[in-house]
Amino acid sequence: MDRNLLLTPGPTQIPPEICEALGRPIIHHRTPQFQNNIKEVIEGLQYVFQTKNDIYLLAASGTGGMESCVCNLLSPGDKAITVDGGKFGERWGDICKCYGVNADVIKVEWGKAVTPEQIQAALDKNKDAKAVFITLNETSTGVVTDVKAIAAVVNKTRAVLVVDAISGLGVVDLQMDAWGVDVVVSASHKGFMLPPGLAFVAVSPKAFKYVQEAKSPRYYFDFRKSKKALEKVDTPFTPAIGIVIALVESLKRMRAQGLDQLFAHFALLAEGTRAAAKALGLTLFPDETCMSCALTTINLPAEINGEKLVKTLRDVHGISVAGGQDHLKGKIIRIAHMGCLTEEDILTGLEYLEVVLKEQGYSFAPGAGVNAAKKVFTK
Amino acid sequence: MDRNLLLTPGPTQIPPEICEALGRPIIHHRTPQFQNNIKEVIEGLQYVFQTKNDIYLLAASGTGGMESCVCNLLSPGDKAITVDGGKFGERWGDICKCYGVNADVIKVEWGKAVTPEQIQAALDKNKDAKAVFITLNETSTGVVTDVKAIAAVVNKTRAVLVVDAISGLGVVDLQMDAWGVDVVVSASHKGFMLPPGLAFVAVSPKAFKYVQEAKSPRYYFDFRKSKKALEKVDTPFTPAIGIVIALVESLKRMRAQGLDQLFAHFALLAEGTRAAAKALGLTLFPDETCMSCALTTINLPAEINGEKLVKTLRDVHGISVAGGQDHLKGKIIRIAHMGCLTEEDILTGLEYLEVVLKEQGYSFAPGAGVNAAKKVFTK
Repeated sequence: MDRNLLLTPGPTQIPPEICEALGRPIIHHRTPQFQNNIKEVIEGLQYVFQTKNDIYLLAASGTGGMESCVCNLLSPGDKAITVDGGKFGERWGDICKCYGVNADVIKVEWGKAVTPEQIQAALDKNKDAKAVFITLNETSTGVVTDVKAIAAVVNKTRAVLVVDAISGLGVVDLQMDAWGVDVVVSASHKGFMLPPGLAFVAVSPKAFKYVQEAKSPRYYFDFRKSKKALEKVDTPFTPAIGIVIALVESLKRMRAQGLDQLFAHFALLAEGTRAAAKALGLTLFPDETCMSCALTTINLPAEINGEKLVKTLRDVHGISVAGGQDHLKGKIIRIAHMGCLTEEDILTGLEYLEVVLKEQGYSFAPGAGVNAAKKVFTK
Repeated sequence: MDRNLLLTPGPTQIPPEICEALGRPIIHHRTPQFQNNIKEVIEGLQYVFQTKNDIYLLAASGTGGMESCVCNLLSPGDKAITVDGGKFGERWGDICKCYGVNADVIKVEWGKAVTPEQIQAALDKNKDAKAVFITLNETSTGVVTDVKAIAAVVNKTRAVLVVDAISGLGVVDLQMDAWGVDVVVSASHKGFMLPPGLAFVAVSPKAFKYVQEAKSPRYYFDFRKSKKALEKVDTPFTPAIGIVIALVESLKRMRAQGLDQLFAHFALLAEGTRAAAKALGLTLFPDETCMSCALTTINLPAEINGEKLVKTLRDVHGISVAGGQDHLKGKIIRIAHMGCLTEEDILTGLEYLEVVLKEQGYSFAPGAGVNAAKKVFTK
């Protein structure tokens, strides 16, 4: 079995031309050649982030990028607002706590999205809040947040809006400048089709003022050092050279397709997958109003052993999907649409999902899922 | 000009079989397959670190690894001892300061090594010091530290000894367990012949007690999370999957050669390079008693424009060496011996060093450097 199809929400499949770039002999980072790579990469990222703001490259995976936002923006004792509606929203609260930041946590039922009204209420209650931390695409539940509406609320206050767009950027729309988002953090191994190990953080001038005032300790992740280095087309510490060079290829690919085309493509993959699930008699986990196009989260029937299903798909059929986390362990599967996945990849995933569901005794019209997706893809 | 020979002290050349591993399609990290990689990598690292201690994998470059030591071991107001005899020793002091740690900095002239007596005196003066931070191979000067002798001194106290072995590990001897070193930090892009972006930290049980007590904020770099994850052959956050997989190949190569063979090889390259410098009438920067075998630092004659020399070597001849930093800018060159470099690579570097020295009007017997090195290599 040679298939190794990643339908997981990170890492995502790496296309051949990016694999080729990753396997090239290394170059030194303090050279004009690498400076050209930095320049090209920053411009390309600005296109994907839809911003003119500075973007810092951090040699770290996504959580390092998230922590960099908290320790650069806030001081111990500062007030912030976080949203706990899944594993990754919860993480914002945990990081704040770790830095002695007083976070007012908005609890949201898993599968639902925080509303602008809830954010407004939290801001009204915490007039001294310095930052609001949200999640564009909550990977643990498959929920997308209405960042635009929330930005409109936060922008009327002194607080900065910080968005974890680790698994959503380049997959669903996020207009940093047009919507007025202050900080956006993303990472290499989701929409960018690269190995994990590189985080990106875009910072607005409003947010950078907070960076200059913040008293939390930080060295490796210090945005003041990043800004100074970026002015000289450099990074303050040795960058993840290999991934930066491969990012050049990844951004070429994304720009050639165009953001609107990408968003439409992922929306189509999501629509097809949702149709397939319904045709198989399965329900979707997230609320209908906030289903993300980055991944589709499907409830498994009670008789299905979800952990075994994920394992069989991977070990017998070479297809990786994600299971549920925490209280959803064994109860859902998550099928990603990000990166370079095609309609064909999704159909392959659905085909074997049917095989494994049947093996476990779940009854449905054979081929119903695949056919429903095909119908969406060819319309 | 297709040559791209890196004689720089990080990143170092990547051998073809490691480039191949870096270019492979990615696998998911929460799989038995990747767990096997983690297991193999930890065992291999324990061989290179000469330890049975836990080793944590951090998706970060070397400085992230250094910061992880400070924030995991110490609390604001704690006392520590650092050594400033070059850029990287200075960094320990800077990171301590950033975390509110009260560091007694031992100033050492660049080119000299800190002595066990100086460490003893600092410990006598600071009986409450909790940690001593030193540098195995000070890359900015080419000086190696006598870690064994210093460990013998520190081991008599309550302080833990933390060694930055980022550019020295696998290149010069460091016997973590036999010498009683408490924490050793290293990184992927020096002796391990990999791209930057992966740091390793080995932590003794004595040091882990401090980790449990320390009050500095840390989340992404939290060793408590790393330890818990390692027990399940996992990492707390998404690891640098691509580099970890390539590290399997790198460690196979290092183990096949054997540590003693590696140390002897780098010592030979250093001996040849030093002989070449002397034969060219050049002097060596570090004190004779503490010259590192990881790299050779050569003083340039006053008439030579060092920055131009480095640039010409790179842009005209495809050979990268490092220049000087800070007050040594333009005054020295640093030729690395680490990783997969061969005698032939060093001879090529020396050949073009002669070409560029001659171009800049420096007079010497043509071929004297190359021949002196050859003589050492063939003896």
